[in-house]
Amino acid sequence: MPNQTPPRIVIVGGGFGGLAAAKHFRGKPVDVTLIDRTNHHVFQPLLYQVATAGLAPSDITVPIRWILRRETNVTVFLGDVAAVEPARRELRLADGGAPVAYDYLILAPGARHAYFGHDAWEPFAPGLKSLEDALEIRRRFLLAFERAERTDDAAERDALTTFVIVGGGPTGVELAGTMIEIVRRALPRDFRRVDTRKSRVILLERGPRLLPSFPESLSARARADLEALGVEVRTGAVVTDVNARGVRVGSEFIPSRAVFWAAGNMASPLAASLGAPLDDAGRVLVAPDLSVPGHPEIFVVGDLAAVRREDGSWVPGVAPAANQEGAHAARNLLRLLDGKPTRPYRYVNKGELTVIGRNRAVAVFGNLRFAGYAAWLLWLFVHIMYLVGFRNRAIVLVEWAYAYFTFQRGVRLITSSEG
Amino acid sequence: MPNQTPPRIVIVGGGFGGLAAAKHFRGKPVDVTLIDRTNHHVFQPLLYQVATAGLAPSDITVPIRWILRRETNVTVFLGDVAAVEPARRELRLADGGAPVAYDYLILAPGARHAYFGHDAWEPFAPGLKSLEDALEIRRRFLLAFERAERTDDAAERDALTTFVIVGGGPTGVELAGTMIEIVRRALPRDFRRVDTRKSRVILLERGPRLLPSFPESLSARARADLEALGVEVRTGAVVTDVNARGVRVGSEFIPSRAVFWAAGNMASPLAASLGAPLDDAGRVLVAPDLSVPGHPEIFVVGDLAAVRREDGSWVPGVAPAANQEGAHAARNLLRLLDGKPTRPYRYVNKGELTVIGRNRAVAVFGNLRFAGYAAWLLWLFVHIMYLVGFRNRAIVLVEWAYAYFTFQRGVRLITSSEG
Repeated sequence: MPNQTPPRIVIVGGGFGGLAAAKHFRGKPVDVTLIDRTNHHVFQPLLYQVATAGLAPSDITVPIRWILRRETNVTVFLGDVAAVEPARRELRLADGGAPVAYDYLILAPGARHAYFGHDAWEPFAPGLKSLEDALEIRRRFLLAFERAERTDDAAERDALTTFVIVGGGPTGVELAGTMIEIVRRALPRDFRRVDTRKSRVILLERGPRLLPSFPESLSARARADLEALGVEVRTGAVVTDVNARGVRVGSEFIPSRAVFWAAGNMASPLAASLGAPLDDAGRVLVAPDLSVPGHPEIFVVGDLAAVRREDGSWVPGVAPAANQEGAHAARNLLRLLDGKPTRPYRYVNKGELTVIGRNRAVAVFGNLRFAGYAAWLLWLFVHIMYLVGFRNRAIVLVEWAYAYFTFQRGVRLITSSEG
Repeated sequence: MPNQTPPRIVIVGGGFGGLAAAKHFRGKPVDVTLIDRTNHHVFQPLLYQVATAGLAPSDITVPIRWILRRETNVTVFLGDVAAVEPARRELRLADGGAPVAYDYLILAPGARHAYFGHDAWEPFAPGLKSLEDALEIRRRFLLAFERAERTDDAAERDALTTFVIVGGGPTGVELAGTMIEIVRRALPRDFRRVDTRKSRVILLERGPRLLPSFPESLSARARADLEALGVEVRTGAVVTDVNARGVRVGSEFIPSRAVFWAAGNMASPLAASLGAPLDDAGRVLVAPDLSVPGHPEIFVVGDLAAVRREDGSWVPGVAPAANQEGAHAARNLLRLLDGKPTRPYRYVNKGELTVIGRNRAVAVFGNLRFAGYAAWLLWLFVHIMYLVGFRNRAIVLVEWAYAYFTFQRGVRLITSSEG
């Protein structure tokens, strides 16, 4: 007599990859459990706006279980997965709760920022991957001006209002462009003893140009735009130390009380527990069908997966790739259940967009490259469109309209415990 | 030769009282410093909506220095005032920074919730006075359902979905009415293993009726409305213990993992450092002109002030009273500077409003008493009108419209460090 209980599929992570997979199982005869450390999905492309007080955390987050409310065969659990035990087909939870058994597993836990062997720098240079990270950056950025207003020490005031961003990729560019606008336009009237317009925003990039994934012409444009706004851009700038006093770049020491890290990723430590081959960033070197070599019942998607394209390059760690991979893994899993062979994944590049400041962005779509106002409008449109839920779209539109016309930021909130 | 430096006025607290005072000094030849522990003013009447995931923290807060951006003779400092030293005319700061000297002082630090000698209950029954309090209540409320969904223990599940609110004043009534709507309307579809509609919301009041400051007919109406919504209301219910397992009421023990405290206030400990007579709740027994007896240069306003009315009753600790007192203290202070005698303060009762649930509220304005839909509409109008800033009004309107038509709550966010 055949086993009539539906196969148990467990998905780890409620980001773009995990959700895309979960949605694919709607109405299928499977029993799905999605586990995430938090109760909410974060729209990561707008995380930098939370970090810079433009949006509230709830504007870019939605409860995972609300997103999946109509997927009645999907149960959502709040839990922190500590390790995979592939031999027993079980997940161990960090809180010591009962292990979670699976027949099939889709891993989509994402990545954290990485300090390339300098973990001691983390307390002085928080990165931007989670909502908590964003709130910590917001707290440090806003607190710097409060402290500058209270101090009578001119050198300390200068250090407090010098903001250093390490890493010239999209996150670093977006943070720098937003911060310079805030210090020059949003804050000046509110302070009596400190001239916030004199604040420095310094963007450090180790490589020869900003936005290395973009064509060179757009990298140059981004740099010119940032410099026009007042950002000090330094390329070829190798950071050799970060501490409570500031940042060392080669032989120069930049006194700063607020350094932000946008320089690199490290995959979730879950990868190590798989016993599969990993790349230098700790990502799982998956098979072409996104499964783990030797474990056809385990798929890895999103930032945890190192996926090679046909031309030998790597699929980038961006939201559209995670989306595609999650859906592809789910389709392959359903094919396995039907006794069909899995199919290799092919990345479809939907283009790349990075915003620099008001009315300024850079965009690449296939052979189309553009910058300035048109790219900025496109950026607005795409980000509103992809936000989950009517409420968030409506509120983000109000926030952006308010910020555009008043130059103010709506969420200048410092809370002690909020991070 | 007369002293030409303007008199130094220090205001402690950026709530309703402190802000009303600060705004009164606009354009006057005085040097004002306002000190607050946080960088933001909180619109306390809507704090319960943050606690119940309806509004984001930033919807009901505004940076204090932004509110006072046009009061160019007012400097705003972020700082925690630990004590007043009236003999030296100085304030001591908790962070050990240089003491702040004053010629005149207006104290408006507000109140905390109080456990009437049972401080050990606090970890198990958080109160609702600050933004951090609200986020902690939100976290516990939302986390309860996450845990209930994961547990296989039926008794534990019942305890997790039993919510007890201690205190039947406006805050308790508002929390209970909102929570019952959430468990019955917002959450059911999102959970697979727990039926959130079966959750219990229990409102405990020590006295004989809810809303003791309202007329008896409206207390009865509030009780009937809450019971119609599904809240279990118990009056004459004296809490004798609160611990990690639940609440003891007389001989009955109610198992609950989420108890919320809305039962009493205790004035800021700053009062004790004044050396002035205090009442049982730690409030300063001020002179009729709101000054501290024996210290004409110190005024106390808002929740820290015990102000007697002409009929012998006390002025209630509500936002309109704090507003009036702040402005009155500032006017008296300016009269002192002009060499004129101060004037006694007279409380103007602007009425009282408490919301019970959608389309339900109770209202008293002079001899006018009403309940139901009209009171609810009035409540909406008054609260939108008094919110500070166009942005907050616009966003709260969007949130409320969304909640009204979908029964959903827009801010169902659990964050670990956010409290």
